[in-house]
Amino acid sequence: MSVLVVGSISLDTVETPVGKVTDVVGGSTTYFSCAASYFAPVRIVGIVGEDFPRAEIEFLKARQVDLTGLKIVPGKTFRWGGKYFDNMNQRDTLFTELNVFETFNPQLPPAYRDSEYVFLANIQPDLQLNVLNQVERPQFVAMDTMNYWIAGMLSELKKTLARVNLLVINDQEVQELSGEDNVLQGARQILKMGPQAIVVKRGEYGAQLITPTAIFWVPAYPVEHLCDPTGAGDTFAGGLMGYLARTSDFSEANLRRAIVYGSALASFCVEDFSINRIKNLTLNQIRQRFLGLLDMIKCDEGEPL
Amino acid sequence: MSVLVVGSISLDTVETPVGKVTDVVGGSTTYFSCAASYFAPVRIVGIVGEDFPRAEIEFLKARQVDLTGLKIVPGKTFRWGGKYFDNMNQRDTLFTELNVFETFNPQLPPAYRDSEYVFLANIQPDLQLNVLNQVERPQFVAMDTMNYWIAGMLSELKKTLARVNLLVINDQEVQELSGEDNVLQGARQILKMGPQAIVVKRGEYGAQLITPTAIFWVPAYPVEHLCDPTGAGDTFAGGLMGYLARTSDFSEANLRRAIVYGSALASFCVEDFSINRIKNLTLNQIRQRFLGLLDMIKCDEGEPL
Repeated sequence: MSVLVVGSISLDTVETPVGKVTDVVGGSTTYFSCAASYFAPVRIVGIVGEDFPRAEIEFLKARQVDLTGLKIVPGKTFRWGGKYFDNMNQRDTLFTELNVFETFNPQLPPAYRDSEYVFLANIQPDLQLNVLNQVERPQFVAMDTMNYWIAGMLSELKKTLARVNLLVINDQEVQELSGEDNVLQGARQILKMGPQAIVVKRGEYGAQLITPTAIFWVPAYPVEHLCDPTGAGDTFAGGLMGYLARTSDFSEANLRRAIVYGSALASFCVEDFSINRIKNLTLNQIRQRFLGLLDMIKCDEGEPL
Repeated sequence: MSVLVVGSISLDTVETPVGKVTDVVGGSTTYFSCAASYFAPVRIVGIVGEDFPRAEIEFLKARQVDLTGLKIVPGKTFRWGGKYFDNMNQRDTLFTELNVFETFNPQLPPAYRDSEYVFLANIQPDLQLNVLNQVERPQFVAMDTMNYWIAGMLSELKKTLARVNLLVINDQEVQELSGEDNVLQGARQILKMGPQAIVVKRGEYGAQLITPTAIFWVPAYPVEHLCDPTGAGDTFAGGLMGYLARTSDFSEANLRRAIVYGSALASFCVEDFSINRIKNLTLNQIRQRFLGLLDMIKCDEGEPL
């Protein structure tokens, strides 16, 4: 089953304690597609300018990513610049140049309308809903969002939220969206807004699944050489959704596995700039890191007391 | 097998957003013994003043805690006062009155010398070593420490550390002791100082076991009504050591279970002031919370990719 993703495609300039890169490929759609493509065919809806590197488009094609929905228009590609501090937990946005992304009005090619798995990456919530409305029979829909939309377009955001199966956000966004300091209690408030499940990305502490009846927590895989956290969240979502699409199984047990696969992919992502590290993985490498994560949470019941 | 513990016994005055209590029983030894006593007989080495409440001594006796090593001397019991801030992750110490604890020179009663399980709670490192030297054939020794000893008695601390099987500390102390920002890398440095395993207490993020060959992470049990975090770490250690003593099994698999039992006990501790919540638990309540924690990290391998 293929996965449809709508979001940003950008050229990023990123500085971390490890180094600096200029105009490298980035954006939620890019990271998501690259990660998801290991598990399932991916369909992109996005927009770039004529300056977008041809080689990156060829790379996505080579990974079987369907680019029918990618518009290449006159003008410059969306650009983002950021700088990370010593511990890489926090960053400053240095600039945001929307360029051709400013007028992005995502339209689905007719061939995409039968998509069953949909990821609405972090864009304006009414555009997310607009995309979802163009899908005929979505089976499993996940979305991301950010503080900017929570603060400025809350009612639109809630309309989209009411239509999705899974919300994937970070702990701070849970607090902002719910008004609750406690992340678990906040997530439970958000569950009442529509989604059946919430995955909270907690950075170095891993990721947490919260449903009305269960909690699951997988730690972050401890990478030896953290290079650049940019895109880790979208790579996580790509691994998660790709695995769900591959297995066509939305059971809680499989959602847990999907989150561990997402964490495995994200742990590769942060080992290099841009999508460099996740461009050429093998399924065996991904599986080994998945099993490594499982080993970090393995514990049996032992004898009754 | 019985567990020997040496540490503080105090009367605490604690203020949290939930309320305030004055001169309630506290101290590492108290929390530790109470938790460990669910799994194994406990032997205490400690000191209190004549003002220490008789009822608390009777309570410990009723829990089969051996008080042969408890000295009751003229003067006042050690007193500590603290205040927690809104999120309860940080606290201010308002006062520390050592009183009779100032001259504490722990001596083992002869009947304690055959102890096989030893917990050296957070006291001066040369006193910890002095206690350990009085144990004839220790089988499994764990210790705690704090920033004060790391900064001021590092060489003594390292001598004790070289003699223990397990170090139980928090993430900030790992950073201070190792000089490493990254907790995992820091813990690996500390493993070279002697202990075969380190358990890092990470507050709301749970606890992490680090050995030369494995990492295990269990989240904190999400308590509905957090009241007072005081003593959670020592309660955790008590559950952990008590379970190890009960099962006489130091395998990594059993150490993982012991950490989950420790987390289960700690989650009860924080639901009330002092030892109130952990005074009268049933083994079934503890087991249910243990199983609840296991459910939060349960994930199977699924099909190979």
